Amino acid sequence: MSKAISMYAASVPPIIRSLTNLRSILEKAAVYADAKKIDPSVLINARLYPDMFPLSRQVQIATDVAKGSVSRLAGVEPPKYEDNESTFPELLARIDKTVALLESFKSGQIDGSENQTINLPMHDRTLSFEGLPYLLDFVLPNVYFHVTTAYAILRHNGLEIGKRDFLGSID
Amino acid sequence: MSKAISMYAASVPPIIRSLTNLRSILEKAAVYADAKKIDPSVLINARLYPDMFPLSRQVQIATDVAKGSVSRLAGVEPPKYEDNESTFPELLARIDKTVALLESFKSGQIDGSENQTINLPMHDRTLSFEGLPYLLDFVLPNVYFHVTTAYAILRHNGLEIGKRDFLGSID
Repeated sequence: MSKAISMYAASVPPIIRSLTNLRSILEKAAVYADAKKIDPSVLINARLYPDMFPLSRQVQIATDVAKGSVSRLAGVEPPKYEDNESTFPELLARIDKTVALLESFKSGQIDGSENQTINLPMHDRTLSFEGLPYLLDFVLPNVYFHVTTAYAILRHNGLEIGKRDFLGSID
Repeated sequence: MSKAISMYAASVPPIIRSLTNLRSILEKAAVYADAKKIDPSVLINARLYPDMFPLSRQVQIATDVAKGSVSRLAGVEPPKYEDNESTFPELLARIDKTVALLESFKSGQIDGSENQTINLPMHDRTLSFEGLPYLLDFVLPNVYFHVTTAYAILRHNGLEIGKRDFLGSID
């Protein structure tokens, strides 16, 4: 079937894919903690440097960017999540509800959003983007940044995963 | 000016942007090594786990994926690089030649490549993709994976950078 790139094609499916890969990595981490008698909270609170965010926050931000970006491209208000996950099952559930939200969007709600004005509330100001640079320069790098950092935290803590776990099946 | 997503818009400019951000991060790392009297090779050979690749290799792979992917989408043979960089100036030069290569492609060479067959030689076999999933599921996550890992290695080694350095200027 002939494929064509579009704002939907470049956002919803790749973001779902990355979150699904993150989910599998977290499942492996939970099994690893159990097998090695490591308290799961040790991994969930692990970080690569004292002033970096821990694993749980990396998962929260990756899903935040995912739910916020797709909602904004579709012109709807993103749902609020409480950011209170502190166990592997809770982090997996957060990914699941984010993926379910993303799956609820139809391509017609996202396609054509290249020039749409996106207002992004930050702590101290509101950033304004057009849809295309928002997706390509902010959303995708941001999602991959936090999923990769989650991967790196777990890899640094001895979990035996490889880039294939991050990319997912590619053949 | 009205923007539209395309295979070119979703590949060449964001990849150049990410490599340029990586370049700035490496420049900060070189300054940091100098200021702290750290042998630059300590940072260049740093890794997050014994069987992970060091910083130099992360930069090499990020640029490899960049030059290979854009060349393949344009239907031309990617140039070969020697993978022998062992200093910050050499890593910066590698990024510069990759960015110069990417800048040499015109949108007409990349646009419309969604259904083009991309053959990707691996160590033991050749993967075959269509252009669209190649870009979205393999190339972009791969570039961001290695740039983020380079960032994480340096952050773990005390370099004071933040996500803004990874994303570049967003306003």
